[in-house]
Amino acid sequence: MKLYETATAPNPRRVRMFLAEKGLLDEVECVQIDLQKGENLTREFTARNPMRKVPVLELIDGTCISETMAICRYFEEAYPESPKLLGETPLEKAQIEQWLRWIEFYLAMPTGMAFQHSSGYFKDRMNCFPEWGDDCKYATERFFEFLNDHLKEREFICHERISAADLNAFAIVQFARVIKVRMQASQSYLNAWHDRIAARPSAHV
Amino acid sequence: MKLYETATAPNPRRVRMFLAEKGLLDEVECVQIDLQKGENLTREFTARNPMRKVPVLELIDGTCISETMAICRYFEEAYPESPKLLGETPLEKAQIEQWLRWIEFYLAMPTGMAFQHSSGYFKDRMNCFPEWGDDCKYATERFFEFLNDHLKEREFICHERISAADLNAFAIVQFARVIKVRMQASQSYLNAWHDRIAARPSAHV
Ligand SMILES: N[C@@H](CCC(=O)N[C@@H](CS)C(=O)NCC(=O)O)C(=O)O
Ligand SMILES: N[C@@H](CCC(=O)N[C@@H](CS)C(=O)NCC(=O)O)C(=O)O
Repeated sequence: MKLYETATAPNPRRVRMFLAEKGLLDEVECVQIDLQKGENLTREFTARNPMRKVPVLELIDGTCISETMAICRYFEEAYPESPKLLGETPLEKAQIEQWLRWIEFYLAMPTGMAFQHSSGYFKDRMNCFPEWGDDCKYATERFFEFLNDHLKEREFICHERISAADLNAFAIVQFARVIKVRMQASQSYLNAWHDRIAARPSAHV
Repeated sequence: MKLYETATAPNPRRVRMFLAEKGLLDEVECVQIDLQKGENLTREFTARNPMRKVPVLELIDGTCISETMAICRYFEEAYPESPKLLGETPLEKAQIEQWLRWIEFYLAMPTGMAFQHSSGYFKDRMNCFPEWGDDCKYATERFFEFLNDHLKEREFICHERISAADLNAFAIVQFARVIKVRMQASQSYLNAWHDRIAARPSAHV
């Protein structure tokens, strides 16, 4: 299988971390796409993902799956013997999904918006509203605080073991550096959790 | 179980449609939350969902699950004998997830942003950037066109049968009236699909 991705981008990183935690990294051959050069905007790439974003997984028969969490779900379901990262019971699955969506809507989305609207990194392909970007940056800061509170007396975000919620939150907490949001020294629970995840081999793929 | 929701809001509607298609609507007692009056901003509601949004599902033991798709996943997993709306095989599950996320990020999100930033409906609790709202409105229009193309020679969005992708897209296509985005007469495939979903009992709960 081929994984079209970008080594420095946060969404593909979430897939690599997910595969590493499952011991499935060897199942994919990574193909680098240069986003700033617009390699994701070509006709060829658009045929793989009409939304023109990385990551995209291409199966052996040529079927393409885009969207980070759709790719992760494919591996979760297709390799049932690998460690479960999306939950075991109905309630666990729902609670992890809740967290994945909180992280998506109230952390990853504002961080991405702040980056895109303030940096102008993709200004060849979108309109930028810097004041909206600033507003999003505050949302990211608020979520850092919320996560710090949640992690008080908890080792992981859900059910006292690693899940995709930790991997996704970690990738975005680190990416938030680009919008100059960093963990505060006072956020000790968030810092301790960050260091626990950073110590895992999956944080280095 | 209790479902905290708002009859006129699009996210709770997605849950009601999902339950109706599964024949599980009687499992929940709906409790109305008046968003414009700020009933979702109280201390009591914030304890149920720190993000202060509807819908929220409260289980018999008091456990609360928020996020539309986390609630849907709970029912999908906890009632395995009900019709599957999130796919059967690993590939189907991944492809439906891909569509759910496309609908979320490239249809529901821009439609919601266009509504919030242009109407000022929630201006007591957020900053509004009307030009960003307008930009989002164009994104919604583009997705209508994309969906129309996809639905050429297809009865449903995925795998030739109803799935959560149809329900979610339908709820937002209808909600888009509030930002004055409507299906064009030229979008005949989109119109035909819309009418097929609208004819289902689940569209009227
Ligand atoms: N919802 C998508 C988002 C993917 C996404 O935004 N990818 C970024 C890189 S992290 C991208 O491809 N950006 C290129 C562009 O916007 O042109 C997912 O979860 O996979
Ligand atoms: N990502 C959430 C979004 C929920 C959401 O935005 N709900 C809206 C109603 S459709 C709401 O509660 N708005 C009230 C507010 O923003 O104060 C989900 O899918 O459940």
